[in-house]
Amino acid sequence: MSGPTPAPGVSVVRPGPGWLPDAVAAAGGRLVEPGPATQALLWFGGDLADLRTALASAPGTRWVQLPSAGVDAYADGGFFAADGITWTSAKGAFSRPVAEHALALTLATLRHLPRRARARTWGEPAGTSLFGADVLVLGAGGIARTFLDLIAPFGTRTVVVRRQAEPVPGADRTVTTEHLGTELARADVVVVAAALTTQTRALLGADELAAMKPGAVLVNIARGGLVDTDALVTALASGRLGGAALDVTDPEPLPDGHPLWDLPTALVTPHTADTREMIEPLLRARVEENLRRFVAGRPFEGVVDAVAGY
Amino acid sequence: MSGPTPAPGVSVVRPGPGWLPDAVAAAGGRLVEPGPATQALLWFGGDLADLRTALASAPGTRWVQLPSAGVDAYADGGFFAADGITWTSAKGAFSRPVAEHALALTLATLRHLPRRARARTWGEPAGTSLFGADVLVLGAGGIARTFLDLIAPFGTRTVVVRRQAEPVPGADRTVTTEHLGTELARADVVVVAAALTTQTRALLGADELAAMKPGAVLVNIARGGLVDTDALVTALASGRLGGAALDVTDPEPLPDGHPLWDLPTALVTPHTADTREMIEPLLRARVEENLRRFVAGRPFEGVVDAVAGY
Repeated sequence: MSGPTPAPGVSVVRPGPGWLPDAVAAAGGRLVEPGPATQALLWFGGDLADLRTALASAPGTRWVQLPSAGVDAYADGGFFAADGITWTSAKGAFSRPVAEHALALTLATLRHLPRRARARTWGEPAGTSLFGADVLVLGAGGIARTFLDLIAPFGTRTVVVRRQAEPVPGADRTVTTEHLGTELARADVVVVAAALTTQTRALLGADELAAMKPGAVLVNIARGGLVDTDALVTALASGRLGGAALDVTDPEPLPDGHPLWDLPTALVTPHTADTREMIEPLLRARVEENLRRFVAGRPFEGVVDAVAGY
Repeated sequence: MSGPTPAPGVSVVRPGPGWLPDAVAAAGGRLVEPGPATQALLWFGGDLADLRTALASAPGTRWVQLPSAGVDAYADGGFFAADGITWTSAKGAFSRPVAEHALALTLATLRHLPRRARARTWGEPAGTSLFGADVLVLGAGGIARTFLDLIAPFGTRTVVVRRQAEPVPGADRTVTTEHLGTELARADVVVVAAALTTQTRALLGADELAAMKPGAVLVNIARGGLVDTDALVTALASGRLGGAALDVTDPEPLPDGHPLWDLPTALVTPHTADTREMIEPLLRARVEENLRRFVAGRPFEGVVDAVAGY
């Protein structure tokens, strides 16, 4: 009989959530200060300089858990270039609240709720139904898939645009990004649920917005940088688009006095698709699961593709 | 071989929709002016005095088709007291757009969209998820059932309150109206989808609103008279309720200057859950179906219960 394997060292860049010490112990890890004994590093957000410092002090780190679904800030910061480290994010873990917010914004826009909310007098009936509409979803990750689940009862005709043509369950068709223009011309609703990468920055620019069907609506719950904000303002101001609802903006936060605040067909929510309260139990479940997998040497959930950048 | 049965006389109180003559002929009826030859009378809305006049001129009328799902105006007008006439409404036919609007209002309220739409500056993250929420639906008709279909992907715990305890598909529990107070205390979301009758007028009064869980939200897509408006204003102004979204109001239209227009947690839409454009094809399908059933002597869809009043 061999002796027990020493519990691997797990470090958290302070402050971590209150449940973390128990989660590390329950998984069979050993909580250590970031340093030579660190094999896993858990990061719950804050100044990225602190993450950089912790990594520098812990050369034995093999795994880093990030707290968000989108990791563009870490890609931009060059973190993924480090050798020998597996990075995991919360991708897929927060899909439900974010997809729900996408549906809330979709229905709100189709039903003219921004205008109704600002009204101080009874108005004329107006609105568009989601039933049977043509819906285009940009992206094929957890949020996109959960959004397809949520709209399934509406009997929409749904197309997903993604990098690869591999079919997405729940979509009527899946096409690659080169077909974006054609699909934009057919859709009543366009939902942006893609990762922000160097390839997808300003994916919807002036040309793409001009390709959209007149009266169609745009929803963005992913990252503001996927849409060219100035081009969107122009498209909304001209009345060509039926409306836009954005939980994310570029720049973000959207500054006071920005034209999007005053456009009658625009709705901005402050990056609140998944509030801290909504994601706390979901992030905890993801971290606990990955701690167990780390200690057991099993594959992680939510591994970041360092090359693709998400 | 007996001779052909004469085609039954079908009358429409002008103006009817353009597709109607073809629909009457396709069903095997004969379009006649309202009068002695009238056996069926189709009413597409307008001054109720015109309907009364047409009925008086057509004593052989056995069936009247009404154009709306709610028929409280006809009940109030004493129309259903006439002997020997079967009244049919559009009940059930418009369930999809109305249930969709109920979901739009539910998500908008949970996600604080009225406040966001009125904001001119980036705000703090806030909102509540529908996933796993306790949902109470008042009513068990087509709209209520379709609403249950639409929220099924959210995994809510759902209770229906109705006159009879007969279970409703898609609801976790179905209870009778006497249990309303208990159920109101548990629900995060209360959706009013009941018919307005003498029994249900002001179903949600000051006591019932006071029984609601603090922070819960109220959605009414049925009839304004089901909710005591003054009591609702008080409940919203006190901050006890999380919000209310109303497609129907009492009085309706909601007058300019009414406090509901200014309450930050209230959202009013102008009885637009089903627009003319949305219901036109649905009403047409209902009328065509009932014309076929009338000529064939088969039971109608959407028969009004004259005693219950819906």
